[in-house]
Amino acid sequence: MKIVITGAAGFVGRALTASLGSAHSVIAVDQHLNGMPGIAGDLADPAVLQAAFAHGCDAVVHLATVPGGAAELDPAQAKRVNVDGTMALIDAAAAAGHTPRFIFASSIAVFGDPMPASIDDTTPLAPRMLYGGHKAIMEEWIATQTRRGAISGLSLRFPGIVARPKTPSGMKSAFMSNVFHALKSGEQIELPVSPDATLWLMSLMCLVSNIEHALGITATGSVTLPAARMTLAALVAQIAVEAGADPTLATYAPDLALEAAFGRQPPLTTARADALGFRHDGDLTVLVASALNTL
Amino acid sequence: MKIVITGAAGFVGRALTASLGSAHSVIAVDQHLNGMPGIAGDLADPAVLQAAFAHGCDAVVHLATVPGGAAELDPAQAKRVNVDGTMALIDAAAAAGHTPRFIFASSIAVFGDPMPASIDDTTPLAPRMLYGGHKAIMEEWIATQTRRGAISGLSLRFPGIVARPKTPSGMKSAFMSNVFHALKSGEQIELPVSPDATLWLMSLMCLVSNIEHALGITATGSVTLPAARMTLAALVAQIAVEAGADPTLATYAPDLALEAAFGRQPPLTTARADALGFRHDGDLTVLVASALNTL
Repeated sequence: MKIVITGAAGFVGRALTASLGSAHSVIAVDQHLNGMPGIAGDLADPAVLQAAFAHGCDAVVHLATVPGGAAELDPAQAKRVNVDGTMALIDAAAAAGHTPRFIFASSIAVFGDPMPASIDDTTPLAPRMLYGGHKAIMEEWIATQTRRGAISGLSLRFPGIVARPKTPSGMKSAFMSNVFHALKSGEQIELPVSPDATLWLMSLMCLVSNIEHALGITATGSVTLPAARMTLAALVAQIAVEAGADPTLATYAPDLALEAAFGRQPPLTTARADALGFRHDGDLTVLVASALNTL
Repeated sequence: MKIVITGAAGFVGRALTASLGSAHSVIAVDQHLNGMPGIAGDLADPAVLQAAFAHGCDAVVHLATVPGGAAELDPAQAKRVNVDGTMALIDAAAAAGHTPRFIFASSIAVFGDPMPASIDDTTPLAPRMLYGGHKAIMEEWIATQTRRGAISGLSLRFPGIVARPKTPSGMKSAFMSNVFHALKSGEQIELPVSPDATLWLMSLMCLVSNIEHALGITATGSVTLPAARMTLAALVAQIAVEAGADPTLATYAPDLALEAAFGRQPPLTTARADALGFRHDGDLTVLVASALNTL
């Protein structure tokens, strides 16, 4: 398959590009490729889209985004990438292929913050951050374009993916990844949520496997991916065991806003995703081992 | 109240501006004002928004849109007005006022075509036309901006409003209004749907009254407005009685696509709108008299 990956030089994009590259013709697109072969530039630039789709298109994995914290700091740029860029990408993909598969990286941010007491496939979307709002409206747009036959779109709502690199990512949820880096390096870390904060997490390689699965099925619409759910204290304890580190390196200074946004993730039921064959890491031991393995 | 009305020189806008103008300070905005006092220009033009909101803002009624047929002919312009223009208008209103009231003209096009077997407040959105897709994503965006406290937004899904002027409006549903003009003038008209096509309609003055009601309440989210439901044959018969015309001036040459899109409007239950005090015309006699009265 000819697969265009946007945000290809990012955390998820690099792993996905490497994994798909052996069996498929992958065109990597990113604003900054950082040495990766591909097409550098902005999705709102028609020349970039023309180059990306010059040789046709069987599928797109659209990862490029301005994430939560960065979007709040620069709403105009976030709208340009998250909304205008996504809409232009869909049009270009539809013109280049025959109803190409279109996998969209959505987010649990569509459920808002604070989240409701439990989440399942019937939970209404209620974003409050610009980022979650952009994801919600693009899910609806992808569903519309799918009903029109322009694309075969599937929006995957990602939980927290671990462990992201330590570089500034604009993500308010960075602490979920930074705790892996700190404990592995034997460094202290002050966490901005409480020990009993509850998190939904998935390892990078598990996510890559789910995206590859999404490319191979025909389901459309929106799917909340399954996730392993745990307390932050349990996560810290398991990372410490796996990395041979002292768990007291992690201390807690809860920030009320971050606790509300990222530390109160409720019980999650993902019947549709489960039926379609999407999987989380299984248990905390596997998740931590997988996440530490890709640091 | 200081009320900005977009699309103010249009069919609904002129009647609303006239009705609100006596008691409120109304700023009319339209691409072409056609002699109406106000601010002429595009919502995507920052200078137009600056002028519209220069003296603050208590409320916005956002009627401006590129409608269904026109949107399919020029998707880029439709996106610029229906999406970019709406998002820019929300930002400008939020900056100019203190959580201003924001009434958005949405449409039953969000339910797609063909429509499901019945429609109520739990019916999922499933647009297929670009126009309905734009309305659906802007409803979600207005809800997001309302949760953020930027605006106090309410999206009203309009049924067919009668009787629009005979000028080309870009609306595929124009036949619903043209039948009033033809029978009143004693002219023949060939209708593109069957006699047993079922329609949801509301008269212009009933809609104006509902929009004024929306400005005065605090409810947010999306509301499907109530509508009188009838067959086209019953509508033709009543217009003929009220206008003293021969009902056989109307003939039928059903177009399958138009019948599916506009002639199969199913039973409609609007519990939320009813509870909030929104009303349809009452019965066919009142609706036809009201519509003929504003021709």
